[in-house]
Amino acid sequence: MGLNRAIRRRALAVAVLWLAALAAPGSVSRAEDGYELWLRYRLLDEPWRSAGRAAAHELVTCDQDPPAHAGAGGHAASAPSRSLLAARAELERGLAGLLGAPLRVTRAVSANGALIVGTLRSCSLLARAPLALAAVGAEGYVIRSLSVQGHAATVIAANTDVGVLYGVFDYLRRLQTHRPMDHLAIATQPRLEVRVLDHWDNLDGTVERGYAGSSIWDWWRLPDYLDPRYVDYARACASIGINGTVLNNVDANALVLTHPYLEKVTALARVLRPYGLKVYLSARFSAPIEIGGLKSADPLDPAVRAWWAAKADEIYRLIPDFGGFLVKANSEGQPGPQDYGRSHADGANVLADALAPHGGILMWRAFVYGRTSEDRARQAFDEFVPLDGRFRANVLLQVKNGPIDFQPREPFHPLFGAMPHTNVMMELQITKEYLGFATHLVYLGPLYEEALRADTYARGAGSTVARVIDGWLFGERLTGIAGVANTGADRNWTGSEFDQANWYVFGRLAWDPGASAAAIAQEWVRMTFSNDPAVVAPVVAMMMHSREAAVDYMTPLGLAHQMARDTHYGPGPWVAGGPRREWTAVYYHRADAAGIGFDRTASGSDAVAQYAPPVAARFANLATVPEKYLLWFHHLPWDYRLASGRTLWDELVVRYTRGVATVHAMRATWSRLRAYVDPERFDEVSTFLAIQEREAHWWRDASIAYFQSFSRRPLPPGVAPPAHSLADYESVCFPFTPGYTGRTPACSPPNPAIP
Amino acid sequence: MGLNRAIRRRALAVAVLWLAALAAPGSVSRAEDGYELWLRYRLLDEPWRSAGRAAAHELVTCDQDPPAHAGAGGHAASAPSRSLLAARAELERGLAGLLGAPLRVTRAVSANGALIVGTLRSCSLLARAPLALAAVGAEGYVIRSLSVQGHAATVIAANTDVGVLYGVFDYLRRLQTHRPMDHLAIATQPRLEVRVLDHWDNLDGTVERGYAGSSIWDWWRLPDYLDPRYVDYARACASIGINGTVLNNVDANALVLTHPYLEKVTALARVLRPYGLKVYLSARFSAPIEIGGLKSADPLDPAVRAWWAAKADEIYRLIPDFGGFLVKANSEGQPGPQDYGRSHADGANVLADALAPHGGILMWRAFVYGRTSEDRARQAFDEFVPLDGRFRANVLLQVKNGPIDFQPREPFHPLFGAMPHTNVMMELQITKEYLGFATHLVYLGPLYEEALRADTYARGAGSTVARVIDGWLFGERLTGIAGVANTGADRNWTGSEFDQANWYVFGRLAWDPGASAAAIAQEWVRMTFSNDPAVVAPVVAMMMHSREAAVDYMTPLGLAHQMARDTHYGPGPWVAGGPRREWTAVYYHRADAAGIGFDRTASGSDAVAQYAPPVAARFANLATVPEKYLLWFHHLPWDYRLASGRTLWDELVVRYTRGVATVHAMRATWSRLRAYVDPERFDEVSTFLAIQEREAHWWRDASIAYFQSFSRRPLPPGVAPPAHSLADYESVCFPFTPGYTGRTPACSPPNPAIP
Repeated sequence: MGLNRAIRRRALAVAVLWLAALAAPGSVSRAEDGYELWLRYRLLDEPWRSAGRAAAHELVTCDQDPPAHAGAGGHAASAPSRSLLAARAELERGLAGLLGAPLRVTRAVSANGALIVGTLRSCSLLARAPLALAAVGAEGYVIRSLSVQGHAATVIAANTDVGVLYGVFDYLRRLQTHRPMDHLAIATQPRLEVRVLDHWDNLDGTVERGYAGSSIWDWWRLPDYLDPRYVDYARACASIGINGTVLNNVDANALVLTHPYLEKVTALARVLRPYGLKVYLSARFSAPIEIGGLKSADPLDPAVRAWWAAKADEIYRLIPDFGGFLVKANSEGQPGPQDYGRSHADGANVLADALAPHGGILMWRAFVYGRTSEDRARQAFDEFVPLDGRFRANVLLQVKNGPIDFQPREPFHPLFGAMPHTNVMMELQITKEYLGFATHLVYLGPLYEEALRADTYARGAGSTVARVIDGWLFGERLTGIAGVANTGADRNWTGSEFDQANWYVFGRLAWDPGASAAAIAQEWVRMTFSNDPAVVAPVVAMMMHSREAAVDYMTPLGLAHQMARDTHYGPGPWVAGGPRREWTAVYYHRADAAGIGFDRTASGSDAVAQYAPPVAARFANLATVPEKYLLWFHHLPWDYRLASGRTLWDELVVRYTRGVATVHAMRATWSRLRAYVDPERFDEVSTFLAIQEREAHWWRDASIAYFQSFSRRPLPPGVAPPAHSLADYESVCFPFTPGYTGRTPACSPPNPAIP
Repeated sequence: MGLNRAIRRRALAVAVLWLAALAAPGSVSRAEDGYELWLRYRLLDEPWRSAGRAAAHELVTCDQDPPAHAGAGGHAASAPSRSLLAARAELERGLAGLLGAPLRVTRAVSANGALIVGTLRSCSLLARAPLALAAVGAEGYVIRSLSVQGHAATVIAANTDVGVLYGVFDYLRRLQTHRPMDHLAIATQPRLEVRVLDHWDNLDGTVERGYAGSSIWDWWRLPDYLDPRYVDYARACASIGINGTVLNNVDANALVLTHPYLEKVTALARVLRPYGLKVYLSARFSAPIEIGGLKSADPLDPAVRAWWAAKADEIYRLIPDFGGFLVKANSEGQPGPQDYGRSHADGANVLADALAPHGGILMWRAFVYGRTSEDRARQAFDEFVPLDGRFRANVLLQVKNGPIDFQPREPFHPLFGAMPHTNVMMELQITKEYLGFATHLVYLGPLYEEALRADTYARGAGSTVARVIDGWLFGERLTGIAGVANTGADRNWTGSEFDQANWYVFGRLAWDPGASAAAIAQEWVRMTFSNDPAVVAPVVAMMMHSREAAVDYMTPLGLAHQMARDTHYGPGPWVAGGPRREWTAVYYHRADAAGIGFDRTASGSDAVAQYAPPVAARFANLATVPEKYLLWFHHLPWDYRLASGRTLWDELVVRYTRGVATVHAMRATWSRLRAYVDPERFDEVSTFLAIQEREAHWWRDASIAYFQSFSRRPLPPGVAPPAHSLADYESVCFPFTPGYTGRTPACSPPNPAIP
């Protein structure tokens, strides 16, 4: 047959195959199910595809071919490390997807558009390049557009192999988000040293406050079976610079420190290591008793010290780069040094000393309350400030962003700036325990940003929380940030598409606490959904307003801790009684016929005095306190006038109502995007927004019905009354609420009416 | 530009796109992860592809175009039902994948290779075709090669839309497994009417005896969110003819019968309905008290009768085709009619009467024991046979395959054949509670086949269990079979690739209890892994030997119930004491210095007398009892000689050892298949086989160490002794065993040494 016919035949054959690949619904797994997170690497549109192809014409590896089985973390000169292999694999995967063509791999620069990727040691080509690598430290990297051997090249270089991997993810992100790929002159390094996810995952597979299915750690089949998912977890973390993972719940089971479990941890560490992820464990303070056979866990008992030292030795024999321990002690019933009359510093230091010879660190949580009952918000400060300077150099004090507990809004924790001689790290919650679980769309970037940018005034204006924790203010030697993970075995990892953004923004802010939540949202939307401005602009706007909406419909004007008992699902302003006053809602809102709010000024608990004087003065003064913190610091009459001219009661009602309206508007926004989003993810988000609107209504109505029973005032004109009676709202209960791993509350039958 | 150039350009563009689609490792989800089960529809090799394309050139739909939103189960003449739409979608999906080309859809036959799919009502073309549909009933179908309007055509036809769907799955299976696609003359219908999966899924998301992650039912987000997984579950079930699903655990929580949960069930029913799946619920007998506010659940109390009737009315208002209830009563602590001095028939009939007006059925479990302690194996018979004839016509008595509890091997349950005036159905376990969980490769086809083919002699030779339950023997009006599901939220559904085969074989045998386990294994291997004989033959052989291997290394020669307490994980022949004798291992093996085995002959419990005289005589006589049931029926001295010429003790040791050797051989077989199986599934199976071999060793060694303490005899020459001491084996315990949802046994720390 003639050439034309041959070509036509081939075209047809190819077209058929292509159609088959595209059309075949047989391959169910090709549906968009969220598994790929922000690393989707879909084919770029023009002109970005052509620009990308021009910029990444060939990959220059500089090194020998990888051996079939490269050793764990091996650094032989002739074999690229597993980190470098991961970096190259990611680049090949990413570029093949984004540019629609497999990457040409060479050992030398042969044309314009060379990508040169490596460290000075792994890549001799880079030795003479002007990279200024000294400035980016152990984890940073540079990405530079340079001329190499007469050709236009892009260099991704770092001092360590993991730094190279981080650079590769940055490079791919730029491509994914339609950033220019020429004239690159990037040099960056993380501002915080320890950037960890805290998994509140239990050894039985449940996840405390987890809303994305069961734990991603398959403890049962470890160390034998390594779920391929572990690698994808590590890729996701590395792509945003997370460098550690605390595998188990802070309400820790000592068994994780026994040898069989340490072997499982070792297997996980082996998988995660190439991606720069160190593993950490939550250690139960009483482990020397429970698994060590000792009579005591007194930190000053030499036998206890010896036990922890031996345990650390055992761990490091298995995992030479083990990160260290996280401890929740003398908090919510957990054992701790105070059981033996010792201080938190005594307790922390014994574990820190055990870890120190191996280079491990100890993260000690400052989340303690309950010894006094006056004001929970001030107790961590009262307990820890006197201990400033008494912690070992390898201890990080892990302080939550606010003084209570991950509420929709809190002022910053007064410990930030108050312990100049202690390494203080921040703990954020990524999982949405108090923010509607996985079915409410609440982007946490603005919350994190608010916390990091808060000015402590510890050394005058500009003493932001970010500058406290990154060591700038007090010269901390060891810095860090932790996020309570929102991952689970759900196919989409986080229980909803939009909760992936919270994992993402945590990592990006951990790398650079000065970054913008809005810019990060935009990156995420571009990678996750589309670069089309018709998608990016409205979705970013929706995300940026979402946290304020949740504050409005849950706890406006500085209210906090108004959720249902134990489960933390739905409104519960009526929650009273029970084992502890600080676990009730009435303790926090203090509503009565006269007014509402928690007086934390000098006339009340005076918790405000824990802040630096300029901050304290601003919060204590009704003329200067931001309205968002009004009822956090002040108890005010229902008729108190706000800046809006409305009474406090009217303003509360308006805010609750506004929160619902914002969610309604989010639904409308999303509904206009049907044409731009795949049906699977479009439908999921639509369904969840419908749930969110219904539940926002529920929060609003229940809260108004309850508080109206004190205010005895009418609703502002034109505002709809609650749909049900207060008694109806109070009767609602849910027997099997996700994330609540404690005793199931008596609740039978569940209320059928609401939400 | 010229045409040739244009074609070349297009060819190139297409090729690039195609390469991108094929090469892009960016699309992580394309890795083989088992999610597609046996419905993978990968492109056929030649000559099967060409033959398939010739046979399925065009799809003739016979009906109008589907409306955008066809109503649930709507049967308007102009709109195909959701079942017909599902059938067509499956055909398009399957053929596009298998044949590599989208299916041409027409409304009339235009060429040879027409596929005509429908019912007589939905497809006027079929009206005059010689289909003999009357012979295949409501769920059967015919597949016929015919000449239609002068063209060669294949007709897939049925009396109902769901029958058509079943026919489509059969047709695709033939293509998938390289069967001839011409001269087809298939007419088939299920021999059993009710073919259900029993999910032991709890409302809190745990799964009793589940080894594949948490429940696939997302109760929390139902009824709003419909996980796309539900549709794939329904497709898988329909593909093997399963027509019902009991959504919740037989240890039932009454809350599932409250209105909020019924709304969730309704949403699930709506998703499952087009695939022919009815939903059923496990009903807690005391629900009238727990959620109804009554003082009693006495089945003869008129208020209780009225409550169940009203509850059934409520359910059928929501779900007009609701299947009915499954009840576990007066068994292992569950409430039941005996709490009020009533019989099982009294209890069953009150629920059956409530369901009857709506066409619902009641499945009542015969799994009861504990009222006497003489021999658990005989108690169900003793309790139920006197009630024969006293159950309503819409009651199915659900009887496990054997008289104890899903052991690796049991003789058939003596109730089969003993209740000629009662509808008796069979309950099989698909989840491997007693068979090594998900990490042991044990194909259950041979176990099911053995149970179904067992001859009860109830009406003389040929009175097989299959012929009892399919109604042939006694003319049962209502027939059925249930399998305790092995599904969970794990990506591969069943926790391991090979456990998918157990779901598959259950469904295929439920359709035709006379089918061959080996033939079904072959189908499954062809669809799941490869049609290559180099794969099919060794893998089928491995599967067919796997159950006997498990019997050997766990409970050879008729032993049973030798596993660890509560968790049922690993060996526990030393288990004694505790709340019930029938929950110990020593109760079953009765080993002492003299010998081993449970005497169920006239000199012992005489349970053997429950079988029909020819069977009883065979089992009771040492000369005729099959060796596989030897110690089930007889207590024998350690030196008793077996057919092999070996003593009982030596034979036991040889069998344990043989079981391990078989697993070792399975590993060797699998290791030779690396080139034929994708790396993801190859590695998973390899890892699990390694676990299985290690645990088979553990079972063998622990059992031998234990029984040797009674036999006091040496091991046969050349047989390796146990690796550890008996005390070591007895000290092993596992605190977080999957599938065990009861109280965690005290177990701290876990034994580090074994397995």
